[in-house]
Amino acid sequence: MNGAQAMIRTLVDAGVDTCFTNPGTSEMHFVAALDTVEGVRSILGLFEGVVTGAADGYARMADKPAATLLHLGPGLGNGLANLHNARRARSPMVNIVGDHATYHHGFDAPLESDIETVAANVSPWIRASKAPGDIGRDTAEAVAAAFGPPGQVATLILPADVSWEEGGEPAPPLPRAGRRPVDDDVVGAVAKTMVSGEPCVLLLGGTAVRADALTAASRVARATGARLFCETFPTRQERGAGVPNVDRLAYLAEFTQAQLAGASHLVLVDAKSPVSFFAYPGKASDLVPDECEVHVLAAPGDDAATALAHLADLVADGVEPELQPASRPDLPTGPTTGEAVANVVGALLPEGAVVVDEANTSGIWIPGATAGAPRHDWLTLTGGAIGYGLPAATGAAVACPDRKVVCLEADGSAMYTIQALWTQAREGLDVTTVIFNNRSYAILNMELTRVGAGEPGPKALDMLDLSRPDLDFVALAQGMGVDAVRPSTAEELADAFRRAVDEPGPHLIDVLLA
Amino acid sequence: MNGAQAMIRTLVDAGVDTCFTNPGTSEMHFVAALDTVEGVRSILGLFEGVVTGAADGYARMADKPAATLLHLGPGLGNGLANLHNARRARSPMVNIVGDHATYHHGFDAPLESDIETVAANVSPWIRASKAPGDIGRDTAEAVAAAFGPPGQVATLILPADVSWEEGGEPAPPLPRAGRRPVDDDVVGAVAKTMVSGEPCVLLLGGTAVRADALTAASRVARATGARLFCETFPTRQERGAGVPNVDRLAYLAEFTQAQLAGASHLVLVDAKSPVSFFAYPGKASDLVPDECEVHVLAAPGDDAATALAHLADLVADGVEPELQPASRPDLPTGPTTGEAVANVVGALLPEGAVVVDEANTSGIWIPGATAGAPRHDWLTLTGGAIGYGLPAATGAAVACPDRKVVCLEADGSAMYTIQALWTQAREGLDVTTVIFNNRSYAILNMELTRVGAGEPGPKALDMLDLSRPDLDFVALAQGMGVDAVRPSTAEELADAFRRAVDEPGPHLIDVLLA
Repeated sequence: MNGAQAMIRTLVDAGVDTCFTNPGTSEMHFVAALDTVEGVRSILGLFEGVVTGAADGYARMADKPAATLLHLGPGLGNGLANLHNARRARSPMVNIVGDHATYHHGFDAPLESDIETVAANVSPWIRASKAPGDIGRDTAEAVAAAFGPPGQVATLILPADVSWEEGGEPAPPLPRAGRRPVDDDVVGAVAKTMVSGEPCVLLLGGTAVRADALTAASRVARATGARLFCETFPTRQERGAGVPNVDRLAYLAEFTQAQLAGASHLVLVDAKSPVSFFAYPGKASDLVPDECEVHVLAAPGDDAATALAHLADLVADGVEPELQPASRPDLPTGPTTGEAVANVVGALLPEGAVVVDEANTSGIWIPGATAGAPRHDWLTLTGGAIGYGLPAATGAAVACPDRKVVCLEADGSAMYTIQALWTQAREGLDVTTVIFNNRSYAILNMELTRVGAGEPGPKALDMLDLSRPDLDFVALAQGMGVDAVRPSTAEELADAFRRAVDEPGPHLIDVLLA
Repeated sequence: MNGAQAMIRTLVDAGVDTCFTNPGTSEMHFVAALDTVEGVRSILGLFEGVVTGAADGYARMADKPAATLLHLGPGLGNGLANLHNARRARSPMVNIVGDHATYHHGFDAPLESDIETVAANVSPWIRASKAPGDIGRDTAEAVAAAFGPPGQVATLILPADVSWEEGGEPAPPLPRAGRRPVDDDVVGAVAKTMVSGEPCVLLLGGTAVRADALTAASRVARATGARLFCETFPTRQERGAGVPNVDRLAYLAEFTQAQLAGASHLVLVDAKSPVSFFAYPGKASDLVPDECEVHVLAAPGDDAATALAHLADLVADGVEPELQPASRPDLPTGPTTGEAVANVVGALLPEGAVVVDEANTSGIWIPGATAGAPRHDWLTLTGGAIGYGLPAATGAAVACPDRKVVCLEADGSAMYTIQALWTQAREGLDVTTVIFNNRSYAILNMELTRVGAGEPGPKALDMLDLSRPDLDFVALAQGMGVDAVRPSTAEELADAFRRAVDEPGPHLIDVLLA
């Protein structure tokens, strides 16, 4: 057994059975080993940002890591933006980066680079395997590191000779660490604060926006009068009819400040203390109100759901949660406005859908329009590196073959990783992509004003404009084998959306926003 | 004047008048300043790999840096692969990376990352501007660092507040360092070796594959009997009728070894000592023959052309160079084979064309078919990070508005940075892209065998296969506003190529290889 075979055997034994890949020469023994060691589904991406974004989407829905397979430093570089998002999402991932043979480094061949340095920003755990005999242990440790908790990107560098040499030794899975229990004293202190009568905000993030945690949090909020929010960009929020609805903190700092205004206590539950996404001249970076005390009920890696249940026992005995009633908007008619798109999605979202949301400015009507839809999961852009949506939808669909994935995608963001459509076609994935095509980086038009850069001139506006030429997403999708349409009315949009989610396989709907 | 305005003023005064950009919120003051400070042409890319690859292609043809404008660490990450290629090409580039405001870092906002760490692999010169008053000097130093010689990527990190605050001070250009002269003793020693009667190889790279240097090298080779080669992946080779033709060292190590076999002396002229591109089991990494002595006539940054002229004076007095005679292949008929494509290009390549070559395995017939075409420049994949061709062609066309750019592009490589086509359409660039569409990562099929990974199974072969679904590059190009056709015969291909280079603006020809 060579090193590559030992690595794959170890991955499979540890439950890592999916590999998103864009390999090169140095990874060829790993690729060959896919046929000699059973148990891994290998999925090709045409660009590494697709690979890493898919692994992120997969992990969010499977609650376990996929492996990636990338080609040296440049391949890792191409995957870096979506690894950044995965880091912010605390998604578990075993990020395998092939490298030159160990003895080849000194020659500074064209593809030589310092892989560990490139990985350092996104991957707290990095190891280069030194010998085939080590690779099983290294792989088992990488899987354990990826799981955490909290989840993280664990980067395992696989030199070509370590991959091809005999002497590979698979290793059994390491015991998985559970989430750290939160001390009773911590819960008790938070409980005391929350019944103090002083204005409280409960801010949920990470694992605390799954249904059980939301239910406990809703009971606490109802019993104590605390305001309940979840972080602006949740990793995976469970929502819809029958689940407590919780508003997200706003993207715009001044709106977040309004949401938090008057709070004396902010209780963080697997969430970060709110800060402005960007800095703006003369505006605050820290969005916690003056005089507001910040408390941590559960940090990342803590058992937030149990802590919330315990808190509810203490302060909300006998209080029921406020569950979202079922409700759907009416199907819209007329022009294809952003609101019309939101209402179509809200009216027709299938039960159990996974929604990947990178609609950005165009998406403001969507949360309201979908709040009462049948239960679904909501994945967002955790790290702000646009180009996450199409890949994450791809990975989510691999993780959940029995569910429909709906990808709400801004035109500008779509173009960073448009290659994901090809993987969706190849794998026959049930993804319906809705392009919010406003032919601009609309968010930057807004930001240009907000940063106080004055009245923009023609050159500046040109840098935010995505027309000239217009992007034809129907042609782009068809060029990669994905069925696509461009509806001209809200009625046609509804028909197209209904058909897309009914039929197996990927579909794209290019909505020119009216 | 704010910091951004001082930066742009300094760039313009130093001759940096072109900026390839994909900005975000933290770069909005820079974008706004494009209208208040005259002199910079700003060109939008839809993906950062397009931006950095275009700046590389531009620098190779303009012999001066363009600026880039990237959005924080993830934007830099997306641009990293083509920065890697630019580093290997020794292309000058002022790589501007916007960052959060200086005071915003401690808050760990979603897009926070360590930009210097990400840049370290590709950029020997890195500086973060600290105040508007520093920014002129920092920019002038970045431009000087980019020029070298040798050229390099100089990364200037621009915090948002340094950009927006008043107090910007433009700085005058720094004096540019010339290429270092090569000592007479060094030239004399090489001359003595080359007339020793022992078998010599002269290996040219970097600046030594421009016409003047080639002419001197050819005289030396003719006078001394030395074999003449250029490096496998030259940054910019001048070639065609009237210029000495020089073979490139082969990509495959065993062929390189055959080219160098029997040499007692290897003289490097702005070239690296040859090593295997990848490591292979049981094969050498260092391709210099045993017992062969390596001499350096000119290192990167040295004045290689003058050193070669001096060497020719010493050993080739009165000897004429061997100039490539004009000759073109006949126009082919029948199926669209790789050889037919090469012959069409060779038969119809316009005078003064810039050829960007990322045809990979499909391109083996091209050097021979184009050797006697009218004089042209040849740009290659210096760092092995595929996805350089379409962006580099974009940048080359910006640098050379009066010349035709021909981009010879493999299908797999094209998909990494396919977004470049949109920039070509927007800017109306005279680029003719020929896609060598063999529906596979063909080079990996070859490499899979060469690395000794055994008979590949179906899963392995699937990872190298780009059919299922087939990529339709005509649809992809049209989706980004580029005129495109798919010829079905060599005759149709010739018609399409002729029309493409005759008409202004970008064209794409999708050649399904027979």
